[in-house]
Formats: sequence, C-alpha cells, structure tokens
Amino acid sequence: MQAVVNRKWTLVGYPEGVPDDATFRMEEAPVREPDVGEALLETVWLSVDPYVRGRMSPVKSYVEPMTPGDVICGETVARVLASRDPGLAEGDLVLAPMGWQTHAVFAAEGLHKVDLPVERASLALGLLGMPGLTAYFGLFDVGRPQTGETVLVSGAAGAVGSAVGQMAKIAGCRAMGVAGSDEKVAWLTGDLGFDAALNYREHKDLRAALEPLVPDGVDVFFDNVGGSVSDAALGLINQNARIPICGQIAHYNAKNPPRGPRPFATLLVRRARAQGFIVFDFKERFPEAMAKLREWVEGGRLKTRETVVESIDSAPQAFLGLFSGDNIGKMLVRVAK
Amino acid sequence: MQAVVNRKWTLVGYPEGVPDDATFRMEEAPVREPDVGEALLETVWLSVDPYVRGRMSPVKSYVEPMTPGDVICGETVARVLASRDPGLAEGDLVLAPMGWQTHAVFAAEGLHKVDLPVERASLALGLLGMPGLTAYFGLFDVGRPQTGETVLVSGAAGAVGSAVGQMAKIAGCRAMGVAGSDEKVAWLTGDLGFDAALNYREHKDLRAALEPLVPDGVDVFFDNVGGSVSDAALGLINQNARIPICGQIAHYNAKNPPRGPRPFATLLVRRARAQGFIVFDFKERFPEAMAKLREWVEGGRLKTRETVVESIDSAPQAFLGLFSGDNIGKMLVRVAK
Repeated sequence: MQAVVNRKWTLVGYPEGVPDDATFRMEEAPVREPDVGEALLETVWLSVDPYVRGRMSPVKSYVEPMTPGDVICGETVARVLASRDPGLAEGDLVLAPMGWQTHAVFAAEGLHKVDLPVERASLALGLLGMPGLTAYFGLFDVGRPQTGETVLVSGAAGAVGSAVGQMAKIAGCRAMGVAGSDEKVAWLTGDLGFDAALNYREHKDLRAALEPLVPDGVDVFFDNVGGSVSDAALGLINQNARIPICGQIAHYNAKNPPRGPRPFATLLVRRARAQGFIVFDFKERFPEAMAKLREWVEGGRLKTRETVVESIDSAPQAFLGLFSGDNIGKMLVRVAK
Repeated sequence: MQAVVNRKWTLVGYPEGVPDDATFRMEEAPVREPDVGEALLETVWLSVDPYVRGRMSPVKSYVEPMTPGDVICGETVARVLASRDPGLAEGDLVLAPMGWQTHAVFAAEGLHKVDLPVERASLALGLLGMPGLTAYFGLFDVGRPQTGETVLVSGAAGAVGSAVGQMAKIAGCRAMGVAGSDEKVAWLTGDLGFDAALNYREHKDLRAALEPLVPDGVDVFFDNVGGSVSDAALGLINQNARIPICGQIAHYNAKNPPRGPRPFATLLVRRARAQGFIVFDFKERFPEAMAKLREWVEGGRLKTRETVVESIDSAPQAFLGLFSGDNIGKMLVRVAK
C-alpha cells in the first residue's frame, strides 16, 4: 500500500484575541501503517466547536490546553481505510477524536462505530452527538423546566441552542430564542416551532425588545453566549429561575477578563440559580439520553440544519465563523465524501 | 392609663446612594389603647439589617418596598405593656415586626413569644432568629458542604457570616473568613474557631492574599458582600463549587447598577453553581433548624457577639454603620431596658 499523506492543521502558538492565520499551520506528513489493534482512518466530517478556543490558551480550563505543535482538536466522523483490529472493518464509520486532519492511525479501542447510514452520519456530531447531549442534560438536568414555564435560549440557532428550544417545546414550555440574523429567526419560529425569536443585532435596548416576547417572564435562561444578550435576559428572569451556563462565546476571544453588569444581586432578589456544566459530567447517562434523542429525531420532533464548509483547508475559516455567527445549526467541515 | 407616646423613625423619601439625615424623620404620636385581641408593645431590642436598604427603593425586590411615611421596618424583641388577648400577659417578651419605633399596638396573632430570659432575649434577633436561620439554610441547603471541604465566607464577622463559619466547622469543613478589620479577624480565628481569616482592607491583590489561606481551593463560597471580595473568592473556587448568595451589601447603596468582572465564564469552567436565596423560602423547616441552633448555642458550639447602639434616636446611625462595617456580630439598638 502506498503511504497515505495526512494533511493537518497544527497550533502555532496561543492566540491573543481572535485567532488568525498566524495561529494555525497546515502540515503534511505520511501516515504510518496501523499496528495490531489499530486502524487507519480518513476524516469524513469534522466538527468545529467554540470550546476549542478555550484549549488554545495556556490556562487550564475544564479541558487540558493544547500545546503548540498539536493538531487542533475536534470530533470527527471518520471512515476506516484499513484495520488490524477484529472489531473494525474497512469502510466502517467511527466517531473519532481526529482533530483537524485528514488521516491518522488510532487504536481501535476508544473508537465508537457510527450506526447511521453515511448520508446521515453527520448527525453523530450534532443532534445525536455532543451538541444534542449537551442540550439534553443542560436543559433537563440543570434547567429543570416545568410544563408551562418559559425557556429563553441564547445562541438559539446554533447546534445546541436549536436543540434546547425544541426540547423545551417537548417539555411543554414556551420556547424563546435569541439569534443573530433574520434568517435564523425565521428558521427558529418557522421550522423549529419556537414560540418567538429575536435578532439581537436589530435592537439597541435588548431587554425592552425581549420583554413583550416573554410575557410571563423567563423561568429557564439557557445561556450559550454571555455578554449583552445575557444581561438582557437576566433582567427578565422570574423568581426561582434556573440559568444553565453552557457557553460564553461572546467572551472567548476577549483579550482581557470581560466586565459588565454584576449579576449576583439579580440572582439574589430572584432567588435564582446560575450553574455551569459540561456534558461529560453526565457521561454515565449518555445511553438514556441518546435513546431519547433518537426517538425524537426519528419522530420528527427534533430537527436540525447544518452549515457545511468544504475541505480541510477551510477548517480555520469554519471555526472562526462560529464567532461571527456564520453557522445556522451545526457547523461542519466536509473533509471527504 | 395615660396615653403612651410613640417615637418612630419614618421614611421621608427614597434615598439615592447612601441614606442620610434627609432619609429619616423622627415623629412622635400618642399610641391608642389596644382593642380586643391586641397588645400594646414596647420595643426592647431593635434589629437593624442590610436588607432594609432594599426596601428603601421604589423597585420591587423580594420584599415589597416601603412607602414614604412608613415606619422604617425591622424585627424587634418587644415587651407587652398591656394585653387584651388571653395568650399574652403584661411583661411577656415577643418577637414583633415593630420597626424603628418605641411603642405600638399589634394584633396578638402573628406575635411570637420569646422563650428566653430577658438578659438573653436579643438572641432571638441573632443566632436564634433570622440571622441564625439564614446561615443554617444558606450553608446547609444551598451550600451543601461536605466533610473536609473548604467554606469561604465574606462578611464573616457579621451576624450571618460568623454563624456560617462556625457551622462550617460543625460540618467538618475548613472555615475561612473575610472581614473588614484586624479586630474582627482576631475574633473569628481566636474565639470562633475559624481556621483562617483575612482583613480585606489590608490587601490590594485580594486573590493573592486569599490563596495561601485556602490551600485546597474553595468548595463553598458564602457571599454576603459582593464586589471585590466576591471577585477574589470566585477566582479560587474549585470544580463543582457552590455559591450561596445571601447578600450583596457592597452594592446596596450604589446609584447605578454595579459593574465588575463577569462571573459566568468562571461558573462555566468550574461547573459551579451560584444561587440566591432568602430564609423565608425555608419557612416550613424553621422548627427543625431552630432545634439545631438551640442545641449548638447551648452546647457552646455557636457563639455570638453583639454591637449595641443605645436609644431609638441612634437607629439611623446603627443602620448606616452596617454599611461601613461598624458592627462585630449582630448590630442591635437597645430601645428600652
């Protein structure tokens, strides 16, 4: 077999502020053949995710930082090109932490077969993957919505946010979304069944704009974004509100610790709870959640949309697009057919 | 019986910023005689509390605002001077929401007899009253400390904070306090058994000063204060930390919504929970808590200290003293012997 050449994006150094061309370097290298218990993989779908920005920093967050020279991390759906493990066959699709590269050899142990047809395999990186699970546990376990309550979600047209709003409807709640374009708003209310949605870029006084859309106040504020959207939402929370903190994408590229209105007095007078979480804290319950997610996806109660960027060459642009809100639904890079 | 003259402090208008002489007016008026089912009361001990500042505002907080002309609100231990209710006898001590006044007629219903000797009756406004209950539910129910964890409390020398630290020790935790004078620090570590305490006024880089005093990080941060103390404490919280938000006294006199470092990213990466609460949410469980508090007080495991200001005339000074940290332990006004 002729040596396969891997094309990979590596981290040049820790960026300050918004990452740019100097942050990433494309490198090529032949890939060795798999040893016993290993498989040679080809990336088909690469997921780019906001949390990866947190790893491009020397500060330990909830995940270990990357080290300059590392392949940029990311989940993928990959195809087995060659296997020396009895559990994997050529052509199998697997969930693999390949990162931003086209080919690599991985130990078969730790790879998970994707039991979806190839044309739907990208769901394993969206509704039937981490984003779906994040929405599920963040909403139901941290947010604990009750029938008839109002759930407000920021970043509502993202992979997680769009799932949160639909799950809120499944739970019998009013779902309200904040997103960054009129097209996104139309998708949320037109296709996904959100009761209301708002394009935050169109409003200076966000709180005033939101208020009529949540006539009974906000019981669960699912925060993916932070910043001024979060400030506005906090002003509308009800007594005993729950605030799952899932992301703070507005601040991931900040050069200095972000400042803003202090929220603790609001939490106090509303007896509200704000709680950060990450999906891996719920690992033991993934099977339970996945069964629900599948049921809802197959029953048409959970829908998704993908923003697909072609070629590994465009991985940095796809990633940076997350921060300017280029994606509707899940942002993916198609690395191979 | 000659008509008793009541001396009362009323609210002139809603203050902006720190209340001053123009906020309060002393008025005198004869008190009517009690009707059937009522009692004439004389205030013995008046509790002044930070939360009252929140009521001196037209904005609805967790309690209804006062209206100009109202007697300033406050809990008291009062003596029955005359009773037309079979349940109350002359000389009885009762817990009564008299506010800042010397005499008033109240319906006997709603008054609670204080079953403490007169020389210890003020405990009903401290360890065996709202502050003790607030510490109990805030620490145990919201903070949920586990043996061996570290509890950091701000406003540690106040009525609530000093109880929180001692309860943390009862729970088998390391107790660390932040207070505003060396005398307070000496009291916390010398008399109350705190493992460490710090005078925040002595340190510019509060986080750096705190860090060596919480070598295992902070698992429960009981926040009475907000502001820079809160910012520093947040920087030291561990994964899965709990933050009961009990007060934000640093901000109660702010003219504009206070701004500062945004805490949600810290809550996210630490998977921490910040939760506002008020003691009345736990009303059904007051008897359970009170039994524990009595046991601990009588067993010498919960100690207190009082800062006593003499005379109803000094109620405004006593109240304002809360915001400059004049009190060690519970701040009380002795209105009658």
